[in-house]
Amino acid sequence: MRVGERRYRTIWLADDGWSVEIIDQRRLPHTFVTERLVSLAEAAEAIRTMAVRGAPLIGAAAAYGFALAMRADPSDDGIAAARTTLIATRPTAVNLRWAVDEVTTVVRQLPAERRAGAAYRRAGEICDEDVAINAAIGDHGCALIEAAWVEKGRAGRVNVLTHCNAGWLATVDWGTALAPVYRAHDAGIPVHVWADETRPRNQGAALTAWELGRHGVPHTVIVDNAGGHLMQRGLVDLCLVGTDRTTRAGDVCNKIGTYLKALAAGDAGVPFYVALPGPTIDWTIRDGLREIPIEERAADEVTTISGRDAQGRIVNVGLTPEASPAANYAFDVTPARLVSALITERGVCAASEEGLAGLYPERATAV
Amino acid sequence: MRVGERRYRTIWLADDGWSVEIIDQRRLPHTFVTERLVSLAEAAEAIRTMAVRGAPLIGAAAAYGFALAMRADPSDDGIAAARTTLIATRPTAVNLRWAVDEVTTVVRQLPAERRAGAAYRRAGEICDEDVAINAAIGDHGCALIEAAWVEKGRAGRVNVLTHCNAGWLATVDWGTALAPVYRAHDAGIPVHVWADETRPRNQGAALTAWELGRHGVPHTVIVDNAGGHLMQRGLVDLCLVGTDRTTRAGDVCNKIGTYLKALAAGDAGVPFYVALPGPTIDWTIRDGLREIPIEERAADEVTTISGRDAQGRIVNVGLTPEASPAANYAFDVTPARLVSALITERGVCAASEEGLAGLYPERATAV
Repeated sequence: MRVGERRYRTIWLADDGWSVEIIDQRRLPHTFVTERLVSLAEAAEAIRTMAVRGAPLIGAAAAYGFALAMRADPSDDGIAAARTTLIATRPTAVNLRWAVDEVTTVVRQLPAERRAGAAYRRAGEICDEDVAINAAIGDHGCALIEAAWVEKGRAGRVNVLTHCNAGWLATVDWGTALAPVYRAHDAGIPVHVWADETRPRNQGAALTAWELGRHGVPHTVIVDNAGGHLMQRGLVDLCLVGTDRTTRAGDVCNKIGTYLKALAAGDAGVPFYVALPGPTIDWTIRDGLREIPIEERAADEVTTISGRDAQGRIVNVGLTPEASPAANYAFDVTPARLVSALITERGVCAASEEGLAGLYPERATAV
Repeated sequence: MRVGERRYRTIWLADDGWSVEIIDQRRLPHTFVTERLVSLAEAAEAIRTMAVRGAPLIGAAAAYGFALAMRADPSDDGIAAARTTLIATRPTAVNLRWAVDEVTTVVRQLPAERRAGAAYRRAGEICDEDVAINAAIGDHGCALIEAAWVEKGRAGRVNVLTHCNAGWLATVDWGTALAPVYRAHDAGIPVHVWADETRPRNQGAALTAWELGRHGVPHTVIVDNAGGHLMQRGLVDLCLVGTDRTTRAGDVCNKIGTYLKALAAGDAGVPFYVALPGPTIDWTIRDGLREIPIEERAADEVTTISGRDAQGRIVNVGLTPEASPAANYAFDVTPARLVSALITERGVCAASEEGLAGLYPERATAV
């Protein structure tokens, strides 16, 4: 998407044809810096330190990290070392593991001298596939935004509430939940986004607000507490969020707090849409509440926060009494009954086993 | 309540018998400092800068400020000046206006030389009346906590979720929503509080956590996003919040985000209790959603935050992209249908016109 006048992806091959460039997301929203990665170690470090984050982008970065590794050492030992190094960066990231396996499968069957080229090709394809999936989600979701606009008599603007960052910064381009917003904005539909700040890590205040602003999409940052009030007062036309994991019955596991917004949407009669790439559906489970374990993260994400001080320095400050413990649940589960529809690259469907099976018959019957 | 080994109120007459001491709440949770007020100007400044906050405490501080004014100038001009100065500090604070009127009524009928003494007496009574109301709320609410404990077979602990700060720091002592918690804790019932941090002003993380910790009540700070998840998983036995304004039909206007917790409580079958002093019931309105205007506050409460840096300095840091606007709605309305019961100084009642009229028959019929 656009950053001012220029179009960006979150990861791309540099002009030299072999090094890899990324946006250092740790510096956002305060500073826009791109970084050049020239080795497996640098790629792994970028993933580990969350200079790149978001499941699809992590996968793409791992694939390019693998290509950088093959350029330096295309031996079987080099393959093994690349796999170990990359998988260790974010051990629970399913998409990272998948991307590493993809490149491994391609390079293993080739002689050493052809491995680097093939790895770069597959990494590029992984990026393009992600962009194509998200663009398709954008098209299907844009139709829902347009319908909301038509329902308002094409007057005013369509107000979309989103939680966390499921935008282009979390993917290679377009994003998942925000892809429909960009499509609608680019098509001239007047769309405005309420961006939940999304404590504790503030991905909404830092990343969603930044990427919407740089692409020129009108938006307003709100605290996570505000969405219910906005929906009660008719100030939200639809909610649009992403998901980390979706069960075959349509339960949605997403950033902590998503469930509260789904409840408010249900109470106010506001449509609650969840955007997802088909590959993130977990066909092995049905009941999200019973079957999805919720990660607990470090308490200091709750008790401290980073921001920019008056001198422009990034400072970490404590928010709570030193003796007070904090708990930090990273995700919650929104039951399918609260989800109006799922938006996938294959179209829009009901959040139910039947809905998903209709779009993915080959997956629904394979388990 | 206790701060370590000593018992405190939030405001008290100093040992010299005329100056007034307060806890400087702007410094919490990082530093516990008491401040001595010796003049009308200092009392007004303490209210204006929110060294003291919370409706009942603001009223008490205004009454003592009036007494300090009468000590310096008990003339009719002095009365007029005290009224103007105090009411201007927080123009929308109903309780402040009420307290100033109370003291005015007492002193106006007296000769100048008796005004200061009478003002001090009335200020002291206003404090004691607040304490008595909150203690009674505590008794009635404690019975609900005890009932929850009995229902659990007196095993484990009773988990209470609260939002914002309706604790003793917001009143003269005991608090409203937290009064039952202190009563239960002091009675040996094992109670644990989930304290919503309560963005944007973080009264939960800063004040609720601090006062619970200093009194020795087990508690855990959570982000505002977490409560729904906790209720879904059976980790909350009851919710207990305060209210700034309650309609005669039982609709509740409280800190932004309260409504989201009430929705989650309803979805999970968790009792949602609201504690309130009878005087905060607004008998002139029924429909909170239609009749209560919601204050919008400055955007910088959302876009920046204060905390303690590694050197112990209090620093304000920016959280959002500079070009991104923010909206800051201060309160929301929880419809009576989501409130399990109201806890007042006269007892517990249904959140309905009939419920409130049963406890306050003289008020319900007076309008």
